[in-house]
Amino acid sequence: MNLSELQTPALVVDATAFEHNLRAMSEALPGARLRPHVKAHKSTALAARQAAAGHRTFCCATVREMEGMAAAGFGDDLLLANETLDARRLGGLDARVTVAVDSEETVRAAVAGGVREVLIDVNVGLPRCGVAPEAAGKLADAARFAGLEVRGVMGYEGHVVGLPDRTLREQLTKECMERLIQAHELVGGDVISAGGTGTYDINTWANEIQAGSYVLMDTAYGHLDLPFRNALTILATVISVSAGHAVADAGLKAMGMDHGNPSIEGAEVWFVADEHTVFAPTEPVKAGDRIRIVPGHVDPTVAYHERMNVVRGDTVEDLWEVDLRGW
Amino acid sequence: MNLSELQTPALVVDATAFEHNLRAMSEALPGARLRPHVKAHKSTALAARQAAAGHRTFCCATVREMEGMAAAGFGDDLLLANETLDARRLGGLDARVTVAVDSEETVRAAVAGGVREVLIDVNVGLPRCGVAPEAAGKLADAARFAGLEVRGVMGYEGHVVGLPDRTLREQLTKECMERLIQAHELVGGDVISAGGTGTYDINTWANEIQAGSYVLMDTAYGHLDLPFRNALTILATVISVSAGHAVADAGLKAMGMDHGNPSIEGAEVWFVADEHTVFAPTEPVKAGDRIRIVPGHVDPTVAYHERMNVVRGDTVEDLWEVDLRGW
Repeated sequence: MNLSELQTPALVVDATAFEHNLRAMSEALPGARLRPHVKAHKSTALAARQAAAGHRTFCCATVREMEGMAAAGFGDDLLLANETLDARRLGGLDARVTVAVDSEETVRAAVAGGVREVLIDVNVGLPRCGVAPEAAGKLADAARFAGLEVRGVMGYEGHVVGLPDRTLREQLTKECMERLIQAHELVGGDVISAGGTGTYDINTWANEIQAGSYVLMDTAYGHLDLPFRNALTILATVISVSAGHAVADAGLKAMGMDHGNPSIEGAEVWFVADEHTVFAPTEPVKAGDRIRIVPGHVDPTVAYHERMNVVRGDTVEDLWEVDLRGW
Repeated sequence: MNLSELQTPALVVDATAFEHNLRAMSEALPGARLRPHVKAHKSTALAARQAAAGHRTFCCATVREMEGMAAAGFGDDLLLANETLDARRLGGLDARVTVAVDSEETVRAAVAGGVREVLIDVNVGLPRCGVAPEAAGKLADAARFAGLEVRGVMGYEGHVVGLPDRTLREQLTKECMERLIQAHELVGGDVISAGGTGTYDINTWANEIQAGSYVLMDTAYGHLDLPFRNALTILATVISVSAGHAVADAGLKAMGMDHGNPSIEGAEVWFVADEHTVFAPTEPVKAGDRIRIVPGHVDPTVAYHERMNVVRGDTVEDLWEVDLRGW
């Protein structure tokens, strides 16, 4: 199919940029050194490419993602890198399942759900989930006492991964990871899981990196000094043109807005409405023209779409279902 | 089913508040005086309640919404209150279909798609779609020359509907509607379609009001002096508790963020991540507690969910599929 035949709005993956990103990451972090984060793309079809590039261990943010990955045959080593109080759908999966825990309640939920392996989630500075480093050993003991295998620790420096200044990113990653190593000494186990796209080559303390955005990228990560290329755009049709502005048919239900407005090359984006992006083009456009919109944040953008269209030049060469949406 | 059995995050509709909103609106704008906007809820099950309350004319923002409404038997008078350059899926619907046009290109697309009736979309002040009022007559002539029936005009005062100051809202609505009436004099036809939830009782120039948010509401419209109650919350589970903050399992993929952070009663929301809302509770919470999150903007929130759970007290008495998502 030709790109021009796609109904809009449509999520488009540039095959060349995607392959570049896949290769750049698998050269830097081969095999299990990368634990690709499924939450960024929510697609078993895309995960299959990551697996073919050598990464057979994955992490997920939701139970639905875990279920879908297991059902698609990617169950070698699946980590729910998130807390859950309801693990009942996890214990029976045809997969090696590991779950993050940070409290006695989440330990009990893991046991009740039939989960056998856990990581101790450590607060390394991001005020979100995770136990204090000094409390990690005690929680590991409680987990082992409850019959769980404790594989090690995880801790996400999520407040650091997006900082544009590399020196600052390095310094703060070091501080975060010293907390994680402190916790690991108390917990034991083989796994030290951390990191993201913005610290994939900085975080040398972790023995596996949980990066997801690298493979599609977005404008937020695009501002950093990373070797990954933007592979994700929203194809949209200009539906209205007025003096000074134009309107494309992709809006709030086609892109995540938590990082602010999207970008359009050669145009200034004014605002986004439910099904509209209003922009001031530099060069004249007319109703019916196709444009590309680059979303600010990949994860909540993909979660609005049923599929991604993989495009090389003007040819749509593949369709990847976004099959891991919902919970 | 009891509310406590719902998996989280879950979209919850308070049946009592919903029924109040339905009744309050149908008393103010009975029958075809209201043309409920489907984009706010994307659910034919919810639309069925609006139809039962006397509103059999609907408006939509996408072709998919039009298709779904027609297939569900709500085809008496469906308006695509938006421009499209690809009307091919509209002409064959088992419904009376009217489409907004604001250019020769959209007129041609309507004809090519087999659409027979249109409204002239007029720019009444919101810099989005719509022709200038003084150009509306010429476009109506072109549409009629192309064989289309021109039913009248529409014009959305979208920059006015959310203004908290009622006097200002009244004044600016008047200015906008004077532009629409000027256009209507040039265009003719029976329909003058405009308005939204924030101007439903102010806009007396239009003979039908395109309100959608009123039925579920959100925090943005909640700041106005409207008689509608918030009926929509996200049920979430506390998954992690630290000194000073807690984390619930509903994040960026469970709510639209274009109006900023959501609200939690008795708590300050710090930030929202992919699958997390981080908040500082006033009263202590523990892992496993259920909380309610009120989204800032109803439309892009509903579009993330597969279904709405209709709840009265602690009983889930109905499930409404969000069956009109996508395009």
